[in-house]
Amino acid sequence: MRIVVLTGGIGGARFLLGVRAYAREVGAEVTAVVNVGDDLLLHGLKVCPDLDSVLYTLGGGADRERGWGRAGETWTIKTELAAYGAEPSWFGLGDKDVATHLVRTTMLNAGYPLSQVTEALSTRWQPGVRLLPATDDRLETHVVVSGRSELASPALANSAGTADDEQGRRAVHFQEWWVRYRADVPTHRFVFVGAEAAKPAPGVVEALAAADVVLIAPSNPVVSIAPVLAVPGLREAVAGGPAPVVGVSPVIGGAPVRGMADRCLAVLGVECSAAGVGGLYGARSDGGLLDGWLVAPEDEGTTVPGVTVRSAPLRMTDEAATAAMVRAALELM
Amino acid sequence: MRIVVLTGGIGGARFLLGVRAYAREVGAEVTAVVNVGDDLLLHGLKVCPDLDSVLYTLGGGADRERGWGRAGETWTIKTELAAYGAEPSWFGLGDKDVATHLVRTTMLNAGYPLSQVTEALSTRWQPGVRLLPATDDRLETHVVVSGRSELASPALANSAGTADDEQGRRAVHFQEWWVRYRADVPTHRFVFVGAEAAKPAPGVVEALAAADVVLIAPSNPVVSIAPVLAVPGLREAVAGGPAPVVGVSPVIGGAPVRGMADRCLAVLGVECSAAGVGGLYGARSDGGLLDGWLVAPEDEGTTVPGVTVRSAPLRMTDEAATAAMVRAALELM
Repeated sequence: MRIVVLTGGIGGARFLLGVRAYAREVGAEVTAVVNVGDDLLLHGLKVCPDLDSVLYTLGGGADRERGWGRAGETWTIKTELAAYGAEPSWFGLGDKDVATHLVRTTMLNAGYPLSQVTEALSTRWQPGVRLLPATDDRLETHVVVSGRSELASPALANSAGTADDEQGRRAVHFQEWWVRYRADVPTHRFVFVGAEAAKPAPGVVEALAAADVVLIAPSNPVVSIAPVLAVPGLREAVAGGPAPVVGVSPVIGGAPVRGMADRCLAVLGVECSAAGVGGLYGARSDGGLLDGWLVAPEDEGTTVPGVTVRSAPLRMTDEAATAAMVRAALELM
Repeated sequence: MRIVVLTGGIGGARFLLGVRAYAREVGAEVTAVVNVGDDLLLHGLKVCPDLDSVLYTLGGGADRERGWGRAGETWTIKTELAAYGAEPSWFGLGDKDVATHLVRTTMLNAGYPLSQVTEALSTRWQPGVRLLPATDDRLETHVVVSGRSELASPALANSAGTADDEQGRRAVHFQEWWVRYRADVPTHRFVFVGAEAAKPAPGVVEALAAADVVLIAPSNPVVSIAPVLAVPGLREAVAGGPAPVVGVSPVIGGAPVRGMADRCLAVLGVECSAAGVGGLYGARSDGGLLDGWLVAPEDEGTTVPGVTVRSAPLRMTDEAATAAMVRAALELM
C-alpha cells in the first residue's frame, strides 16, 4: 500500500508519527508532501520550519514539551545576535537548529534543490517516510494586515512588511504575523507569494498518481495545507488522481487542537468547526478534495455534502493513539 | 599623535592591547590595519579570524587561555555539524563566534564592504582603536604544498586543494594548512590569491599618510604582515610615507613567541631569528620597510643593515608589559 500525506506544521509532524507506526504494521510506504509556505530567510539562513518539524519529530530529535525545535536546545546564538542588535529578533533560532540551517543553506547556495537537500538531511534523521517539499521553488505565505493604526507602534514601524497601499495595508511574512504578532492584528488575506510560478517538487505528482490513498493531515487548512495545494498542478493531482482522499479534522468541538487555526479561518470567513473545515476542503464529487472526512466524537453528526464523514478519537496523545486515527481514516475508504 | 599598526594574528591582537593602553596614556589615536589573508568561507559563513581576534581581545570577549575565539564559548553547532557529516570538519566554529559570522555574512551579502561591516561590529565591541581591514576585496592566503605522497592519505584526498600540477603540487587555503595540517606538509610557497586586483580599504592610505609613526606588530611576518603589504599601494604607502616605521620582532632567541612562524620562515629560506625577520622586512633606506627594529634582550647585538636596532623585553605577559614594549618601540624613532 502506498500512502501520501499532505502535511504541515507541528500537528502534521505528529500525525506522521502515527502514519509511520501504522505503515510499519501493515507494510505500507509513506510519502509526505510538506508545506514550504512558512519557510524564510533569517540572518542569511534558509529556515524550513515544517520540514524540520517532520525531520526532528520522526527522527527522535524534537522537543516534545515545546512542540517545535530540538530537544536539549541551547540558545547561545540567540543571545549573541541580540547583543549585536541583529534584526529580526522576534524569531529565536536555537543553536542545534542553526546547524541544520547552515547545512541546508550551504547546499542550496551550491545549487542543490530543496528536495535533494531534504533527502540529504534525512540521511541523518532517518524519518522512515519519504519527505518531499511541496515545491523546490520559492513559495512564501504572506499575510495582508492593516498597518495604519499599528504604525504608531515602534514594533510595527520596524516591520519587514513587503508592501504598503493607500488603505495602509501591507503584507508581512507569515512567520512575522504568527510569531511576532501572534496573529493578533487586523488581517485581510493570505497570499502565497511565488505560487503561480512554482512547480511540484520532483516525485510529488508521481507519488500522487501511484497512491492508494491520500491523507490530509490535521494541519492548519489555511496556512499549512492551502499553500501545498497552491502549487499549480498539485491540487489537480490530488483531486483528479486515482486514490481516495481522506482528511482528518484539525478542529475538535469548535476549537483547533493546537495553534491558531481559528484566527486563520476567521480571515476566510469560515466557521471554526469540523464542518467548516470539511466544507472548506469540499467534496471531490463537487470540485473539492475529499472523499472522506474524519472528525472527533465530539463532532459526531457533522455533515459535509458529498463526503463520507465518520468519527474517531482525534487527540494525538501518543503514537498508538495517532496510529489508531490513521487506521480509522483508512477504514473510511 | 597618530599611530598606525600593521597587524594580524593573535600576537597582533595582544600587541594592540598595549598600543591602546599607551595611546590612552598619551592621548594618541590608533588605527589598526588588519590582515584578511586568513579569512575564509565556512558553511557559507564569512570568517575573519584576525579581525575577530582584535574585536574580541580589545572588546574583552576573548578567551585568554585558548588564545583564540570567545570566552565561555559553547560548541553545540560544531557537534551538530559533525552529526550531519558536514565538511570541512577540521575548523571548529564556536556558537558565539558563529553569531558574529552570521551578522557579518548577512551584511556582506546585503552589499556592505568588509570595512563597514567591521565598523558595525565595533559598535558592540568598542575596541577603542580604529579597525580597518587591509582591503575590502577578496585576498586569501593559499599555500602550495606537495600532494603526490599525501594523496594516499584519506585526509588529503578529501582536501579542498585548489590546484594540481604535474609535480603533484596543489594550493590549499592557509587555514587548511595551518589548522588541519599544522603546517606539517612539504610546503613550497605562499600565494596571496586576489592580491593583484585588491585595493586598500577606504581610510588605509589616508591613515598612513597622516601617521606620526607606523608600527609593525610582532605578528607572523610571512602570513600576517606580508598579505597586508601585498595589497597594491599599501607597501608603498608605508615605505614612502612620512612616518617612521618601527617593527617589533615576533622571534625571541630564535623561536617564535607563539604560532609557527618558524615553519613559515623556513619556506622562504629565512632564518628564524630577530635578525632574519628584520632582514626580511629590510631597511627603508634600502627599499625595505624599517627605520627601527625592536628585539628582545635575548637578541641584543642583532644587526639589520640600515636599521636602528634596540632591545626591550618583548613578552606580552600583561597589558602593562605590552604598553612598555610600545613605549620602547616609539622611543626608537
